[in-house]
Amino acid sequence: MSTHTLKDPSLLDRIFATTNKLGVIVRAVVLKTYLDCVPCFFRQALYASRRATGDSVLQEDILRQVMLHVSQSDFSRPPPFTAREIYRLVGNKSGNHDSFKEIKHQSNKLVLGLYPRLRQMVEESSDPVAQATKLAIAGNIIDFGANADLDSSDIQRSIDEAMHVSLPEKVMEHFHQAISQAKDVLYIGDNAGEIVFDKLLIEKLLPQNIMYAVRGSPVINDVTLVDAEEAGLNSLVEVIDSGSDVPGIVLDQCSKAFDERYEQADLVIAKGQGNYETLNEDKKHIFFMMKVKCPVVAADVGCPVGSMVIRENQVG
Amino acid sequence: MSTHTLKDPSLLDRIFATTNKLGVIVRAVVLKTYLDCVPCFFRQALYASRRATGDSVLQEDILRQVMLHVSQSDFSRPPPFTAREIYRLVGNKSGNHDSFKEIKHQSNKLVLGLYPRLRQMVEESSDPVAQATKLAIAGNIIDFGANADLDSSDIQRSIDEAMHVSLPEKVMEHFHQAISQAKDVLYIGDNAGEIVFDKLLIEKLLPQNIMYAVRGSPVINDVTLVDAEEAGLNSLVEVIDSGSDVPGIVLDQCSKAFDERYEQADLVIAKGQGNYETLNEDKKHIFFMMKVKCPVVAADVGCPVGSMVIRENQVG
Repeated sequence: MSTHTLKDPSLLDRIFATTNKLGVIVRAVVLKTYLDCVPCFFRQALYASRRATGDSVLQEDILRQVMLHVSQSDFSRPPPFTAREIYRLVGNKSGNHDSFKEIKHQSNKLVLGLYPRLRQMVEESSDPVAQATKLAIAGNIIDFGANADLDSSDIQRSIDEAMHVSLPEKVMEHFHQAISQAKDVLYIGDNAGEIVFDKLLIEKLLPQNIMYAVRGSPVINDVTLVDAEEAGLNSLVEVIDSGSDVPGIVLDQCSKAFDERYEQADLVIAKGQGNYETLNEDKKHIFFMMKVKCPVVAADVGCPVGSMVIRENQVG
Repeated sequence: MSTHTLKDPSLLDRIFATTNKLGVIVRAVVLKTYLDCVPCFFRQALYASRRATGDSVLQEDILRQVMLHVSQSDFSRPPPFTAREIYRLVGNKSGNHDSFKEIKHQSNKLVLGLYPRLRQMVEESSDPVAQATKLAIAGNIIDFGANADLDSSDIQRSIDEAMHVSLPEKVMEHFHQAISQAKDVLYIGDNAGEIVFDKLLIEKLLPQNIMYAVRGSPVINDVTLVDAEEAGLNSLVEVIDSGSDVPGIVLDQCSKAFDERYEQADLVIAKGQGNYETLNEDKKHIFFMMKVKCPVVAADVGCPVGSMVIRENQVG
């Protein structure tokens, strides 16, 4: 209805600009956790408590306990540290410590079903490592912490988008070079389902000496030893666990065994936001690979939500 | 890339169906506040504290106080009751009790600028009351509690959409009839800016005996006496305030003067989600008019987010 068009949209947008400015995410120097993470913590707490129990009175009780807990949380720790506390609380209160078990199993099954086709896409590519890297990043979409509404069409869309994206040439050159020179590569996984995409990339990086790391115990839909087995990674490379239920790598929370392997590695590949948020200030040589799934990480990496990111952390 | 299409999307969607099911909002019988409101409370608390102060340490402190407070909140009260507590806390801690003042002023100014065109749309319509009702509902989009990212294009879109929607005939018939028979109409406003849309409708309902109600003190971008004056409502009808800072009408929180006028009215028009959430179980004859702006209200009224709703509350 053109007759009802506003006369001067630019003026009106100026009027509302003060509001939009407030949407800018500013990270306080002392914080690793942004205040923007707080509403998201409660979104996750609610979703997780609904997965863990059908009892709405218990769900309410859990949510209230989470409020008390987060009100005292140390925001100088990265968001996955607090997230771990929340998921632990949900597990302890509900008695259900692995409420994403079925989702993880189905995600693995789903991507294993796609695997022959994905592998063909890699083999037919002129640059199989780059192609497998793009797919490994695309697979990072399967994150039920960031997106509880995920369905199969999101995975297909993420794959399709990856085929239309070029990863930054310089970073990929560095990646090729780093891989060829590394003695011990530690590949830190993120989510179930995604692990099958990781397998595609690892197959292209062999015969490099690669170790694959999973979480020490179930948290959200993050990979554990069970998923490595379901994805068939054990027959390819050595798999270790972090010894921790943090959905990321907080080294002082990991087992001594993991810390030693981490120290020993001269190259790390870290998948997903949780590993990025916990290791982005580490001094190791790390390639982070992820889909950007929230405004906080988007602001940090300087790419919009939905972007595919590969980022090199230079040796400090 | 059709070669990469998933083989059996229906199977994959079945796989993820268990996840989506959890998105269904189920209201516990004893609660007026849904658990789904909790993450939204913290989203609002963060936005409001950023509006109220630029001091990020104070923002963090406010957010932690809100967590402690909401962990003890009475969820048998409607969401605007808890929201009031949160906005009060933000005001008390920051010393800024009217942080939406400028937004409210600019919203009024913006819609007053549209007023001549909107009035023409009403006058040229074959059913001016229905046309003005649609516009009054369209104006309910200006809600900074539900949508902090609102800009002028949302308002234009809401107006355009209203022109393509037909309100339910039967309800509109009842509305016409109720208006013609009522002795005392109480029209309860919701937001600044929207109040100018309300004025359009009120002009079409005159010479009926109409009283317009605003909030007793500032909360979010809800209307107060200042906005009624800016919109020029005072010269048309009597304006009263609720005596309360609840962004809705919780009768036991309102002034005695308001309660008496509410009792006296034989017809109520209540705008927006906050008035709906607080009055939807009242026994009075009420026409609720609103844009659906959140999944919780969407589930309650059975219409998707974005819908324009007019709903009649029959006399109990």
